[in-house]
Amino acid sequence: MSREKVFNFSAGPSVMPLSVLEKARDELLDYRSCGMSVMEMSHRSSLFQEIFDSTKEKLKAALSVPDSHEILFLQGGATLQFAAIPMNLMEGGTADYAVTGNFSSKAAKEAEKYGRVNIACDSSDTGHDRIPTQSELKLSDEAKYFYYCANNTVYGTEWQYVPETKAPLVCDMSSDILSRPVDVAKFGLIYAGAQKNMAPAGLTVVILDKSLAGREMPITPSVMSYKTLIKADSMLNTPPCWCIYMLGLTLDWLESQGGVVGMEQIKRERAGRVYAYLDESRLFKAHARADSRSDMNVTFRTGDPELDAEFVKGAAARGLLNLKGHKVAGGMRASLYNAMPMEGVTALIEYMKEFETKHHV
Amino acid sequence: MSREKVFNFSAGPSVMPLSVLEKARDELLDYRSCGMSVMEMSHRSSLFQEIFDSTKEKLKAALSVPDSHEILFLQGGATLQFAAIPMNLMEGGTADYAVTGNFSSKAAKEAEKYGRVNIACDSSDTGHDRIPTQSELKLSDEAKYFYYCANNTVYGTEWQYVPETKAPLVCDMSSDILSRPVDVAKFGLIYAGAQKNMAPAGLTVVILDKSLAGREMPITPSVMSYKTLIKADSMLNTPPCWCIYMLGLTLDWLESQGGVVGMEQIKRERAGRVYAYLDESRLFKAHARADSRSDMNVTFRTGDPELDAEFVKGAAARGLLNLKGHKVAGGMRASLYNAMPMEGVTALIEYMKEFETKHHV
Repeated sequence: MSREKVFNFSAGPSVMPLSVLEKARDELLDYRSCGMSVMEMSHRSSLFQEIFDSTKEKLKAALSVPDSHEILFLQGGATLQFAAIPMNLMEGGTADYAVTGNFSSKAAKEAEKYGRVNIACDSSDTGHDRIPTQSELKLSDEAKYFYYCANNTVYGTEWQYVPETKAPLVCDMSSDILSRPVDVAKFGLIYAGAQKNMAPAGLTVVILDKSLAGREMPITPSVMSYKTLIKADSMLNTPPCWCIYMLGLTLDWLESQGGVVGMEQIKRERAGRVYAYLDESRLFKAHARADSRSDMNVTFRTGDPELDAEFVKGAAARGLLNLKGHKVAGGMRASLYNAMPMEGVTALIEYMKEFETKHHV
Repeated sequence: MSREKVFNFSAGPSVMPLSVLEKARDELLDYRSCGMSVMEMSHRSSLFQEIFDSTKEKLKAALSVPDSHEILFLQGGATLQFAAIPMNLMEGGTADYAVTGNFSSKAAKEAEKYGRVNIACDSSDTGHDRIPTQSELKLSDEAKYFYYCANNTVYGTEWQYVPETKAPLVCDMSSDILSRPVDVAKFGLIYAGAQKNMAPAGLTVVILDKSLAGREMPITPSVMSYKTLIKADSMLNTPPCWCIYMLGLTLDWLESQGGVVGMEQIKRERAGRVYAYLDESRLFKAHARADSRSDMNVTFRTGDPELDAEFVKGAAARGLLNLKGHKVAGGMRASLYNAMPMEGVTALIEYMKEFETKHHV
């Protein structure tokens, strides 16, 4: 199946803008007539340093990151940050964790190795179909930070507000970063794996209030110490150069699309169309409650696992790829990240309607 | 300067085979007519799983890895392994470290956070210009492992023998993996950052005797526990998919070049020609002692820092790139990894001769 006939609804790694991939292809053998691929460049060369610095500047601009915060380009994924965050910020004390899905649950479990975890909320009793309200959050007085995951990729829910807490906010934005404006100054730490809205898998972006650095436990690996990483400007060792370069290209594309303000308008329309159809469907049902729905990952099901499987199989046959839900959630999931064209949404809804006509009794 | 006119002597990230880059470029937008780039594929898809499995199989074959050992594809670089190794294998006890350069020194320092480090040898007194002999190694009876770095990228020395020790051997092969045959069964753990002989920066390969897994400290991050990673077949979280794909392409190329046996012949000729010239030169002097010389990184100098700088500048002007030595060592360094064509060596020696004629009094 050729590229023109495919829409990739993968939850991550996921679809990238075509123009970004074309640029990467055109420059792959020889970056700007330097005689080398970006993949072959010394990370200590002025040529790569320019790519690194300009990518950082573009991200700073795209998210309006204040000077109080530092941007780090790291490896290891969100899963390494599950440990790095408590190792750096918990100081052997307590931290509040909002458990609203698969990854916040894993983060809370990992943090227990390094201090006391207070579960500020837990939506597992209703299959993580909702985000708790501010008044439902049980905050502890002595918390070193409040941790939450802005968008739950697996269950398709998304925080529609920024929690008010005394403790610094730590937020996993892996699956909705760059999809809407964020007031970065409100956060102690934001982090995100790149493989949804930013770049290929292998890059983790951390945006950190510099005043929080320097509190790491003595057993923290050097390459996980925020203080050390800030001092080395992310280059304590060789960074994931290719992913950083790709992020730069994505940020150029993002700017051409109106930046995060433009992305927010588009994502609302994209997801809004699917939810509108789901709300009137007699076959499909949205998983997330209306007030907690994610614009990035739309989760839905028929209620019949066999019919779900048939839907996913039929979708793939017509080029609508990776619609199967995560194994812990079941059902279907359509991930509608920044690079998903509106045509993909149209094709999805068209297929859903056909499927419903065929199967609804 | 176009690609045809450049030879890239970077110590890493470094030159890659042209055919590998061409294949990556040709498949970048659409991998085998699946309609997606490898960078866009879900790591849980059968399509990516096939890339992952075949790359692992090719590496297993290339290095004749026995079934007792597991291959892991990780993130974080050698620097993360500096911590992961003691966290997993030291058990709060003692480990022997051979300090023969910059990176083994850093590894030893990091290990001190997790147990007692016995310095089995230290070549810093002579500027790390040599590898100690077996009889010079001061081994401790209770060591949980013996750690060394097979090739010292910064100083241009390389172990010409595998040490005999009671404790399991742990070896950093970042800069000479796949350049010669290795008896993997002799090692408890081999690891290597990919960015020299394997793939773009962002992938770390660990080859581990499975019987050593399961001894990690309780505070070891899950994503650094070898036991957990073996169980998850490296996919506890999203792996660096693009780098794994590139490694697969490099391994195809390696096989076409005669595998590690072929690489060993070529590297001896490549480095041998430069050392032969250095030994007869009246201007340039090799840094490493004759019995300890690296075939991967040839370090040399004139003895006059200004002349060294002029040499590096003049080299760059004619397309011989990245010949400046590491900042802690000074002088020059020509890295001659697997992908360096013999023409690069010819061009380098030609320029050195011209430079010598011009400057030798």
